[in-house]
Amino acid sequence: MSIIVQKYGGTSIGTIEKISLVADKVIAERNKGNEVVVVVSAMSGETNKLLDLAKCIDTDISGRELDVLVSTGEQITISLLTLSLIKKGHKAVSLTGSQAGIITDSSYNKARIKSINNSYIKKYLNDGNIVVVAGFQGVTVSGDITTLGRGGSDTSAVAISVALDAKECQIYTDVDGVYTTDPRISPDAKKIDNITTEEMLELSSQGSKVLQPRAVEFAGKYDVGIRVLSSFEEGSGTLIKKENDEEMEKAIISGIAFNKDEAQLTIRGVPDQPGIASLILGPIAEHNIDVDMIVQNVGEDGLANFTFTVPRNDFKTAMKSLEESSKKLKAKKVIGDNKIVKISMVGVGMRTHAGIASKMFAVLADNKINISMISTSEIKISVVTGEENLEIAVNVLHKAFELDKAH
Amino acid sequence: MSIIVQKYGGTSIGTIEKISLVADKVIAERNKGNEVVVVVSAMSGETNKLLDLAKCIDTDISGRELDVLVSTGEQITISLLTLSLIKKGHKAVSLTGSQAGIITDSSYNKARIKSINNSYIKKYLNDGNIVVVAGFQGVTVSGDITTLGRGGSDTSAVAISVALDAKECQIYTDVDGVYTTDPRISPDAKKIDNITTEEMLELSSQGSKVLQPRAVEFAGKYDVGIRVLSSFEEGSGTLIKKENDEEMEKAIISGIAFNKDEAQLTIRGVPDQPGIASLILGPIAEHNIDVDMIVQNVGEDGLANFTFTVPRNDFKTAMKSLEESSKKLKAKKVIGDNKIVKISMVGVGMRTHAGIASKMFAVLADNKINISMISTSEIKISVVTGEENLEIAVNVLHKAFELDKAH
Repeated sequence: MSIIVQKYGGTSIGTIEKISLVADKVIAERNKGNEVVVVVSAMSGETNKLLDLAKCIDTDISGRELDVLVSTGEQITISLLTLSLIKKGHKAVSLTGSQAGIITDSSYNKARIKSINNSYIKKYLNDGNIVVVAGFQGVTVSGDITTLGRGGSDTSAVAISVALDAKECQIYTDVDGVYTTDPRISPDAKKIDNITTEEMLELSSQGSKVLQPRAVEFAGKYDVGIRVLSSFEEGSGTLIKKENDEEMEKAIISGIAFNKDEAQLTIRGVPDQPGIASLILGPIAEHNIDVDMIVQNVGEDGLANFTFTVPRNDFKTAMKSLEESSKKLKAKKVIGDNKIVKISMVGVGMRTHAGIASKMFAVLADNKINISMISTSEIKISVVTGEENLEIAVNVLHKAFELDKAH
Repeated sequence: MSIIVQKYGGTSIGTIEKISLVADKVIAERNKGNEVVVVVSAMSGETNKLLDLAKCIDTDISGRELDVLVSTGEQITISLLTLSLIKKGHKAVSLTGSQAGIITDSSYNKARIKSINNSYIKKYLNDGNIVVVAGFQGVTVSGDITTLGRGGSDTSAVAISVALDAKECQIYTDVDGVYTTDPRISPDAKKIDNITTEEMLELSSQGSKVLQPRAVEFAGKYDVGIRVLSSFEEGSGTLIKKENDEEMEKAIISGIAFNKDEAQLTIRGVPDQPGIASLILGPIAEHNIDVDMIVQNVGEDGLANFTFTVPRNDFKTAMKSLEESSKKLKAKKVIGDNKIVKISMVGVGMRTHAGIASKMFAVLADNKINISMISTSEIKISVVTGEENLEIAVNVLHKAFELDKAH
């Protein structure tokens, strides 16, 4: 018998009725002759309800006790789903993260899985049970409850799949798969049947919120296939697998992601000397602001222009910090723009196909779309442009690279 | 340093404001120089809310998964109380029943504590923490979550007190101590300062709902003092301690308890032969009905009359069963009365003072109160009378035995 791991998020199990539907899906998989381990999140809204309670005590809570509190959310869903499976006539048992042997480090609220002692899950599987495991949570070696941080249930599911050498890790969400781009922006967007973990990583970190990047990373590292499926519709979803030359049909471009949550800052006319980047970005980092894209170039006057992007929420703080640096560095000017969008084309085929970048720039230029920044990686090209260009840019690129064709 | 164990029930911690008040009480005890372990129940209403959820899946749930579900109630309170203690500037840590090493048997929903591995609690106490433990729950040796059944938090607190060799186990409730009788029935009722565990056992099983009988039994067995106190008022409460000739001032009668939750059934004119009692009570037991008082006597005709009491809820079922038995046994008549009350006088002094029973009957007779059943134990006399006599009977007995005097 093969082991299948299924993961259901909070919206998939937000009510007793939905829990019953999930139970039916689990049973269907079991009836195919597979052993099934189900990983669940808290019912949607439950975690926030618990956080609101805690915030009545202290507006700024964190640490060990917060994890004791919020981990009850999944504990409630594992018991309810298990009760539903039992009511429908199946042997089933629930396990908390601790009981399932999910050992993490002790970084409360954002712990990382160190290992999984699979003996407890295996014991119950061998006894013929469907095993329902609380996602998002674990335990330290000294027995303290931890949580993995938001979205950690995906990581739990992948880690359990690895620990059990599962055939497949099925992630059920409210979409029926990964798309070439956001269907709300481009009506031509098509569901992708197969995608490599590398491409998925670039897509998810670029704003496609279907899967937690950490979970994808984990799956790639240990070579587990993840299938993204809809909780509410039938279909084969999208299979995310480590690149494998023989098996996998390679698309040149897999998808187009975009991120509207950034702002762009530029400091002009700084002396081009070693260490200038750290003099500019050091004060930004001190404000705990993550910098994403960074571009530096030198003008004819021998002075450098330095441009970078930050989360849009941090725009004001970053601007203030940059203006202070500007005075110290005797720079010419500071410019900021928080109405930008980053558009990224992702695909493993870029490695072997030359001219993808130049074609992208040409398509954008033909459509009079101005680009303010460019950055590239092995399987990704990102450009920054004005927010108002988002829709047209995505659609012309989607068409030009034939993402609307059979995939 | 002495260790003090405090237990707070669901009404004492039903809101964030009340949790903050409890934190203040805990800190006050800590500031006296004691090490403090706090045992808490779920917030009032929380357990029922969880049960209601489960009942949407199955109206008749029980077993392992039910305990996984309801144990989240206390897990929420331990974290909230601990967060409150930390916010008020104290070192504190929460432990679930499992983390606190409370090992039980595997009778889910009504487990019994087998042992407590106190090393985890001690470790945290030694590190200077106030330790907050989830009551009502434990774990089997194989790691499954269990609950002790309703009111089990009292038992948790006493068991932890025993395991830590605590100086005192303080049970905080919504009353300020144990009373000579219910103040709602008798305005003369007085708070008792000291009472033996035996007396308390008789009082609590007779309807004084202040403490769980199992907790009192446990405390008596291991000689731990329990102090019942109010969560909302100041005062020294009632100390419940194993009888100790030297220390304890002995009252002849400690209190008067009553129980309106019973019904009385009589079968008249059954042949007085060996085994008749089991022929009558056997079918009752088969319906899972608990029988409380039993009285049998033989009339002049050589036929026996047999009377017993059952919980009022089971009255109809018991009557039906008894009528069937009556036919088989060729008895003369079956009579039932569900408007009765059992009144019990409790006191260790009865052992050494003759005439308590006859004085009790005389007082009742003087007040024209008819008695239908009598049963006695070493430290208790119980009588059954019509429900309408409750108030007058309790008040005249309370006065006659001077329970309104300094106690």
